[in-house]
Amino acid sequence: MKLPSSREKDTGRVEAFSDGVYAIAITLLVLDLKVPPSSADLAAALRAQWPVYAAFLTSFLVLGIMWLNHHRLFKLIRQVDHGVLIWNGLLLLFTVAVPFGTSLLSEHLQHPGGRLAAEVYSGLMLACAACYNGLWRHLASARRREHLLVATCGHPEVVAIHRAYHIGLILYAAAFTLSFVSPVLALVIQFGLAIFFALPPARNA
Amino acid sequence: MKLPSSREKDTGRVEAFSDGVYAIAITLLVLDLKVPPSSADLAAALRAQWPVYAAFLTSFLVLGIMWLNHHRLFKLIRQVDHGVLIWNGLLLLFTVAVPFGTSLLSEHLQHPGGRLAAEVYSGLMLACAACYNGLWRHLASARRREHLLVATCGHPEVVAIHRAYHIGLILYAAAFTLSFVSPVLALVIQFGLAIFFALPPARNA
Amino acid sequence: MKLPSSREKDTGRVEAFSDGVYAIAITLLVLDLKVPPSSADLAAALRAQWPVYAAFLTSFLVLGIMWLNHHRLFKLIRQVDHGVLIWNGLLLLFTVAVPFGTSLLSEHLQHPGGRLAAEVYSGLMLACAACYNGLWRHLASARRREHLLVATCGHPEVVAIHRAYHIGLILYAAAFTLSFVSPVLALVIQFGLAIFFALPPARNA
Amino acid sequence: MKLPSSREKDTGRVEAFSDGVYAIAITLLVLDLKVPPSSADLAAALRAQWPVYAAFLTSFLVLGIMWLNHHRLFKLIRQVDHGVLIWNGLLLLFTVAVPFGTSLLSEHLQHPGGRLAAEVYSGLMLACAACYNGLWRHLASARRREHLLVATCGHPEVVAIHRAYHIGLILYAAAFTLSFVSPVLALVIQFGLAIFFALPPARNA
Repeated sequence: MKLPSSREKDTGRVEAFSDGVYAIAITLLVLDLKVPPSSADLAAALRAQWPVYAAFLTSFLVLGIMWLNHHRLFKLIRQVDHGVLIWNGLLLLFTVAVPFGTSLLSEHLQHPGGRLAAEVYSGLMLACAACYNGLWRHLASARRREHLLVATCGHPEVVAIHRAYHIGLILYAAAFTLSFVSPVLALVIQFGLAIFFALPPARNA
Repeated sequence: MKLPSSREKDTGRVEAFSDGVYAIAITLLVLDLKVPPSSADLAAALRAQWPVYAAFLTSFLVLGIMWLNHHRLFKLIRQVDHGVLIWNGLLLLFTVAVPFGTSLLSEHLQHPGGRLAAEVYSGLMLACAACYNGLWRHLASARRREHLLVATCGHPEVVAIHRAYHIGLILYAAAFTLSFVSPVLALVIQFGLAIFFALPPARNA
Repeated sequence: MKLPSSREKDTGRVEAFSDGVYAIAITLLVLDLKVPPSSADLAAALRAQWPVYAAFLTSFLVLGIMWLNHHRLFKLIRQVDHGVLIWNGLLLLFTVAVPFGTSLLSEHLQHPGGRLAAEVYSGLMLACAACYNGLWRHLASARRREHLLVATCGHPEVVAIHRAYHIGLILYAAAFTLSFVSPVLALVIQFGLAIFFALPPARNA
Repeated sequence: MKLPSSREKDTGRVEAFSDGVYAIAITLLVLDLKVPPSSADLAAALRAQWPVYAAFLTSFLVLGIMWLNHHRLFKLIRQVDHGVLIWNGLLLLFTVAVPFGTSLLSEHLQHPGGRLAAEVYSGLMLACAACYNGLWRHLASARRREHLLVATCGHPEVVAIHRAYHIGLILYAAAFTLSFVSPVLALVIQFGLAIFFALPPARNA
């Protein structure tokens, strides 16, 4: 007996659940923007909070770009198997932790713990990049390519994703290494990487 | 090789993600409504919180209307290109910050920092209006109109949106300027603008 | 020129947005369940929190039932006009405030402010019931019935909703009045009403 | 008069609402990861928080697996009746409480209240497993099987779910009992159970 064509539905719910997690994670970032007490000099208090705003902006950008890439990737997926669910789950685990990494970095950026906080932050980004690569390798492995993907391996979109993910992993590993040097530098690099990945796909290729 | 008709799916996930962000941002507003401690005189404590309720109501209205306009706009969109994603992302960035602006305003409304808080609040609204205009200009530019929009430039809905967005930008810029005068006035104006945009489309035209 | 059949899409996004708000409001309730500090006698601390659990359960039930009714109502809606959006927006405004009313009630239930907290809580429920009635009257008014609803006025589902909403409004008004007597009684009544509305539709008719 | 084929829509909104609740509950887990103050020795402070990370990971895994099973189960459901809505509502009630149980366990794991916290945590998991079983029994009862399920009772997926749910209930009851012995053991068992249920369905069968 055949179950109802579950193809659409499968991708549908995985995308809906992932969309939900991305939307919530990106919105939770705003909880980091703390309102100074009414007794404070508001202008000075807001100026002093610049690391919080810088981290908020960077993380919003990073999560937004990640969602975009998730979106672009899932358009190529025909069928969701167990491996896709596991890799996607791992990806969401690190995504959900991004608001924590952001708080950690913005709280400690100008303090002795700043280097460690930058490590954790860059490490989370590297972990996300690694999960994207894992998910992609699973999808594109010779054995599964045909029933999991919509396009063949020579398709320009497939080639572009393959290249972008490969470069992305190297860049995020480099950013992780450089975050040992200085926490502010780490934040700037993450911001730059997000901008780079926000450019239209053609330029990434 | 052709990818599966991605038109529906594209708009679909962008709308779903945006819906999620709007729904969460609008629901996070309630976190501002602080419960007075059980030792307090509850009636007096709730009365003293009126700026919190005024800001909550205004922001709920504003975000609700924005969602409605997002909804109305996306019905006209045929295809999502890179520019739509970027403008929509910027729009969501300021949308996500609205609960923060609301907290800031309700905490400082009756204090020296009130004027600055009203600036930030009105500035966020102006930024949202600017993003709507940017998104619309991108969609309606002569070069892209045909493949991005469902309707031609003479269509009444297109004309109505064009006019409403143009007027909206001017009104929000005026509200931003007036917020330098008095924070309470700024809140009243934002409330009035939201009511104005909540009226049926015919009256806006 | 005709826009793409927007019927499905309209109801679709309004339902998706409302689903999001309900899902978030119902999940935010858990933020009220405060973890006692590790130094406390955990068993005693948890026992002392019983008003928190009672309010959590009642609000979860109430929001769940409201979502169910929203779901049942929107199945009958053919087209979303401006009035539907406004009534639905008002409904969501009070729905979003339910977690605040719940916190208020669970914090003050056993204190002098308990009566006022119960008023606010029962008032929110009454406001939600009133919005459902407003939405329904708008949908079912002679002038709009035909293009807004899927079913005619004699349809059993229409009759059942008509009756249930009418009775619901009276019961919630009575519960609001009784909440002046005792806050614990108010909570019990709200719990009872939720159970009553959770029974299968046939028994409500 | 016939209502529009509500089959798709019914399952659709129940799944969307449940997806929302799961996505929010899983994302709220991150609120437990507290950022140490900037004055602290960050490395030491993070190391001392290991119970928080262990509980976060376990709960993320558990909620992720539960969502997966929800997904797998609803693919088999043809029609949503009142009983499905009630059982699903109960399931979501305990699901929403999982972030609270997680906070409780991570706060008290190394303190006198640890055993009770582990009880509550394992009890919540057992309650979820019981709701899955209740939902399944309702769906698969001889009287309803035909109009509620897509597949017949001999279908391998039906047999697999039947067996997995039955075993799951026994294992969660055992885990609940063992949580009286030691809170750390309880956490390890829950982690192990989640991994077990994350394995591909074939190995569960």
